[in-house]
Amino acid sequence: MNLTTYIAENRQRYVDELVQFLRIPSISSRAENRPDMLRAAEFLRAEMDRLGMKVGIFPTAGHPVVFGEWLEAGPGAPTVLVYGHYDVQPVDPLELWTSPPFEPVVRDGNLYARGSVDDKGQVWLHLKAFEAWRLAGGPPVNVKMLFEGEEEVGSENLGPFLEKERARLAADSVVVSDSPMFGNDIPSICYGLRGLMYMQVDVEGAAGDLHSGSFGGAVDNPANALCHIVAQLKDADGKVRIPGFYDRVRKLSARERREVRRLPFTMKEFLKSAGNPPRAWGEKRFHVLERIWARPTLEVNGIWGGYQGEGAKTVLPARAGAKISMRLVPDQTPEEAARKFTAFVKKIAPRSVKVTVRALHGGSPFLCPTDAPEFQATERALTRAFGRKPVLIREGGSIPFTATIQEALGVPVILMGFGLPDENSHAPNERLDLENYQRGVLSAAYLYEELAKRAPAPAQRKARRKAPGRSR
Amino acid sequence: MNLTTYIAENRQRYVDELVQFLRIPSISSRAENRPDMLRAAEFLRAEMDRLGMKVGIFPTAGHPVVFGEWLEAGPGAPTVLVYGHYDVQPVDPLELWTSPPFEPVVRDGNLYARGSVDDKGQVWLHLKAFEAWRLAGGPPVNVKMLFEGEEEVGSENLGPFLEKERARLAADSVVVSDSPMFGNDIPSICYGLRGLMYMQVDVEGAAGDLHSGSFGGAVDNPANALCHIVAQLKDADGKVRIPGFYDRVRKLSARERREVRRLPFTMKEFLKSAGNPPRAWGEKRFHVLERIWARPTLEVNGIWGGYQGEGAKTVLPARAGAKISMRLVPDQTPEEAARKFTAFVKKIAPRSVKVTVRALHGGSPFLCPTDAPEFQATERALTRAFGRKPVLIREGGSIPFTATIQEALGVPVILMGFGLPDENSHAPNERLDLENYQRGVLSAAYLYEELAKRAPAPAQRKARRKAPGRSR
Repeated sequence: MNLTTYIAENRQRYVDELVQFLRIPSISSRAENRPDMLRAAEFLRAEMDRLGMKVGIFPTAGHPVVFGEWLEAGPGAPTVLVYGHYDVQPVDPLELWTSPPFEPVVRDGNLYARGSVDDKGQVWLHLKAFEAWRLAGGPPVNVKMLFEGEEEVGSENLGPFLEKERARLAADSVVVSDSPMFGNDIPSICYGLRGLMYMQVDVEGAAGDLHSGSFGGAVDNPANALCHIVAQLKDADGKVRIPGFYDRVRKLSARERREVRRLPFTMKEFLKSAGNPPRAWGEKRFHVLERIWARPTLEVNGIWGGYQGEGAKTVLPARAGAKISMRLVPDQTPEEAARKFTAFVKKIAPRSVKVTVRALHGGSPFLCPTDAPEFQATERALTRAFGRKPVLIREGGSIPFTATIQEALGVPVILMGFGLPDENSHAPNERLDLENYQRGVLSAAYLYEELAKRAPAPAQRKARRKAPGRSR
Repeated sequence: MNLTTYIAENRQRYVDELVQFLRIPSISSRAENRPDMLRAAEFLRAEMDRLGMKVGIFPTAGHPVVFGEWLEAGPGAPTVLVYGHYDVQPVDPLELWTSPPFEPVVRDGNLYARGSVDDKGQVWLHLKAFEAWRLAGGPPVNVKMLFEGEEEVGSENLGPFLEKERARLAADSVVVSDSPMFGNDIPSICYGLRGLMYMQVDVEGAAGDLHSGSFGGAVDNPANALCHIVAQLKDADGKVRIPGFYDRVRKLSARERREVRRLPFTMKEFLKSAGNPPRAWGEKRFHVLERIWARPTLEVNGIWGGYQGEGAKTVLPARAGAKISMRLVPDQTPEEAARKFTAFVKKIAPRSVKVTVRALHGGSPFLCPTDAPEFQATERALTRAFGRKPVLIREGGSIPFTATIQEALGVPVILMGFGLPDENSHAPNERLDLENYQRGVLSAAYLYEELAKRAPAPAQRKARRKAPGRSR
């Protein structure tokens, strides 16, 4: 059987199956979707079982992990661990979706649904590559697959799972498809990710909302106070003003800065991918890509307080709050960021209101060693599938798992993603380019072949752990 | 018939009738409550008709005005115009109400319901005073009553109505019961009110919400930008930073400042009435009461943007907004405040987002001439009903009607209110002290008698229009 032909012939079926997977509203942050989380896990388990994997659903303190393995390539062959996640982001504001988030539809070659690109489509393409190899009698490597259900809420229970199941997960490399390509027709490997620390600030004043006329001017207003706090966290150019925030920021090398400038970046396309804001913005000394890839930031993800309805209500709100997250770069740590954020907010908080700061979740930044043989195998697989050499990029988003598993297993984690930057991964109208989905199946299939060409001995692996450029 | 005895004997009936009135959810700011607005207007019309008034429901561009008159005291007797409003504030957050806002219940001598104190209870007490007089063959003055349905949304259609119906509304004085007493057992006449200018600021960035990892640091965040804007509007002590904002602020006289300091104000009771915020706050040079009564302020009434749900969502919001109102004092005008606010926000708005400023509604500040004979008649009526002389106070809230009608009719507008400062007028668990409600009926009944003792000739009225201290 010719692998390439088989994959081409099954293109429509790959879409149809993915549509079924996307219909399950597996929103990990919502308690009411807990049954859907279990349905999504079972959907994966059933398919992995059908493909001949030894597979199970592993409970955690949160949503379960689906883990399966096929080890028939034998002990002489390398082992690859594929990671993905079956949970998705919430969908609000629902009214901005052109079609309902859990009723997938194809428009103009894109599949629209929550989770299409992040990450169910990129999970499914690995299953389909494995399926093709199984029908061809392979694959030539041992395959393990781990799909978690808490990536969108910080992967908090994955660390303990990795710790407990370290032996079961042992592999020579980890492959993750949950990062974007640099642009259409530009195959990309992502070697760096930002980390995250997600905070919540609550400001309380009086026991209840007050009449803004009867008390305005003599009692502090939690919404005003919150704005004063938020405004002090970051200056007008985007520099974070929390003391010591930049202490551990690792600078890009001169080579990395040169390579950033060599990428086919245009401001026009960047703005288009960002939904056309009035202009780009941020720290002036840095290229737009550096701001996203290699500089930490602080963003208000949500803010609320008082009256938000139609018309006017003259209320002095009793409370206001904000969700604020920091994106971190090597060698920052989420723990230190949370500590410094909390101390600074407490310090600048006016005494006229009560301010509470909570750390919701965090994840470490990540860097992959680009000199690893598995990294180079991935470059070859992508070159074959796309007909051109991939570019090396970083990503501004976070996959908390990457740093965690690279640390836990001591092997390179390779981010071979097939999404596009403007596919609205955390926003309304999330979509997946079906051409890239198809090339993703092909790339994953070729990757097994390329990885089999070079199985590093344990000693070599060990040496690599010390190589510079690795994430900590 | 003895008026005092009759009123005492009908106490329970007054409560029962008010409960029926309060069951109607007449929220003027919500389109869905439009039918309820009509029901509330009809409820008043039917009662006024029953009491022998010539009454009608007058349409406006918004909610209708209910106007009735009883002129049988004759052309030699003075005419008093009673003003009130049958619309109420919205009720959210609904979950903070101990009992449902439109299912009135009595607890500890208070009637709990939206509109109980603001202003349906204070409308109904005037009808009951008139009813008592009608059974006693009177009253000794001609009575006109005007109840509007748009006080809580800025009384925008009342000005045109006054203009059109000026002849019909002609009176020697206007009495309004929609202001608080200084404290329990302290009868009060309010001679000053703050005006209002209510604005909305909308900040837009990209077309849709963005992934905060993929774009954070390189695209401005409308929620962060909004906080930067709001934080620049007012300093940490409450001083408004809009250029020229204080230009027309009329200072309190030395006598007024002395009298403020003579009132039985205690910080503990003030904080209790404010729902116990951590502390009082505001412009340090001014007494707490001066801050509320005679200093303008700027408050965030509502703020929103991005994710407000459970857990975490790493979104860079496409838009954020705030409702911001300014309370104004003589001789500020809402038009000028709106103009200066808009110009300043436009000036400080970063170019990286699109900022829109809208003026939602406004009302002028108000001052009543305390030397008017009708003002003194009111002092006597309250002294009789409460057994002690009333204090003269101001209020931080706004009744746009007061300045409008004082200007339109050229007669004093007297604010004889029976609410307490902690009765949650714009907040959950609004209530009305039933003892004050009852004393209100009595005060209104005595007021007719006191007003009849002194009917100023037209010439005297004219002269008073020029007296210093009148509002513009």
